[in-house]
Amino acid sequence: MAEGFGSALAQAGRETQALLRERLAGHDLPVARAMEHGVMGGKGLRGFLVLEGARLHGVTREAARLPAAGIEALHAYSLVHDDLPAMDDDDLRRGQPTVHVAWDEATAILAGDALQSLAFELCADPAVGPHRADLCLSLARAGGIAGMVGGQARDIMAESADAPLDLDQITELQQGKTGALIRWSAEAGAVMAGADARPLGRYAAALGLAFQIADDILDVEGDAEKMGKALRKDAGAGKATFVSLLGLEAARTRAAELIETACDALSPYGAQAGTLRDAARFVIARDN
Amino acid sequence: MAEGFGSALAQAGRETQALLRERLAGHDLPVARAMEHGVMGGKGLRGFLVLEGARLHGVTREAARLPAAGIEALHAYSLVHDDLPAMDDDDLRRGQPTVHVAWDEATAILAGDALQSLAFELCADPAVGPHRADLCLSLARAGGIAGMVGGQARDIMAESADAPLDLDQITELQQGKTGALIRWSAEAGAVMAGADARPLGRYAAALGLAFQIADDILDVEGDAEKMGKALRKDAGAGKATFVSLLGLEAARTRAAELIETACDALSPYGAQAGTLRDAARFVIARDN
Repeated sequence: MAEGFGSALAQAGRETQALLRERLAGHDLPVARAMEHGVMGGKGLRGFLVLEGARLHGVTREAARLPAAGIEALHAYSLVHDDLPAMDDDDLRRGQPTVHVAWDEATAILAGDALQSLAFELCADPAVGPHRADLCLSLARAGGIAGMVGGQARDIMAESADAPLDLDQITELQQGKTGALIRWSAEAGAVMAGADARPLGRYAAALGLAFQIADDILDVEGDAEKMGKALRKDAGAGKATFVSLLGLEAARTRAAELIETACDALSPYGAQAGTLRDAARFVIARDN
Repeated sequence: MAEGFGSALAQAGRETQALLRERLAGHDLPVARAMEHGVMGGKGLRGFLVLEGARLHGVTREAARLPAAGIEALHAYSLVHDDLPAMDDDDLRRGQPTVHVAWDEATAILAGDALQSLAFELCADPAVGPHRADLCLSLARAGGIAGMVGGQARDIMAESADAPLDLDQITELQQGKTGALIRWSAEAGAVMAGADARPLGRYAAALGLAFQIADDILDVEGDAEKMGKALRKDAGAGKATFVSLLGLEAARTRAAELIETACDALSPYGAQAGTLRDAARFVIARDN
């Protein structure tokens, strides 16, 4: 991991988690503790993308921290619900018991619901600035039926389909399921500044796809202990993945090409975007 | 039911449901059909309150329709999740099979999640006007840990508590669980106009409490067929309700007093607020 990127990611993670803890500290309900549990321990990549995109557009760290924490809350809600017995039925996440295991299903449903509300509360905060409503609007689209939830629904349908998905279908699924939030994260800083978000959008589209391919490779080759979650679930379930469709070597090549595309998209930002380029390279080099 | 109010409520319900159907029509996923199922058939009281509050502040119907549909989507999400086996485990809602019965649990979880996103998408729409970010912020608070979800969490805790709740505790629970969204609905029109929302807030606080007392009375006295859902679950579970704490007669008296308080709060609006006064009286006169 490039040193500049590694410390920037770690710093971003500390900041977003501190803000989320602060927002939840005043609530004494068990569901508030379950929400904290749901947001802790992640890499914080999405919040980092918000902070970096904001820096490139001259948005203050104080303002950018709010949507950065917001997208981490939204991502956490999706994981808490995804882990439920009726969904992926996972007991372990980031090396810890999942929320419905540590508490119960009802608390996990409510904690996820309230994490989604918290995401919008953070993005709509007046301190976010004059474009806060546009952030809320794009977040609602990225998280909803046309974005993340749509991708998850396609994923569930694929499990019971007669034939495995083809490459186009799995790419469409990914663009919703993981791509939409990554793209929102990268574009948020430009949106906050009222600037052109297209270069960051192109960066994020390539990055998100590379991220999913890398995830599929890790599902085959990764170390469950380092990953902090169960692996080889996709292959076991006979699900189509980028690896099952392309083969391991071609998947690796495709991910590397996408990272080049992502880096090229950052050219309008010149050397300023070095950390985002490092982030892209990290996505395919990570072991968890 | 007063005729003016009855037709205004029915008209509001048609408008909000038409807008929600229109927003979901372009999506061919089963989860989109599950979302439609979740929003259909409700009384539409919350959307009606948005439209009436907006009318009192000179906000156009076209703009007000968006948050009116939004709050109906948010309310529907809470019902879809509330009905899940891990929560209230209800098979019937508004006389129809609940979403997890008609589809499955995973689809019900996702449909609820996407309905929450849709609520924010509607409130953040540019056509809502210059105060759309404030609407999103107050909706996030009303729906989250300090509002509706907080109330639901208290409700779940009460079920496993050693002693039933007292009147103060059950009032606090209600202010979150059902009160927060009713209050948001009544205040939304004033927020959209950048006007003082306190009179409508006072109206809604009294109305929401009366609504819950009336619900508790209906749970004891109502007709399950007219209500379209299972009744007498609270008494069967030994849960404290306004009826169990006050007795039937005192509960009725308290609800009637609250309706007077609600109507008095509307005095700044004079005769213009006649329909909202009728709405308050309907809340304790309804049989479903």
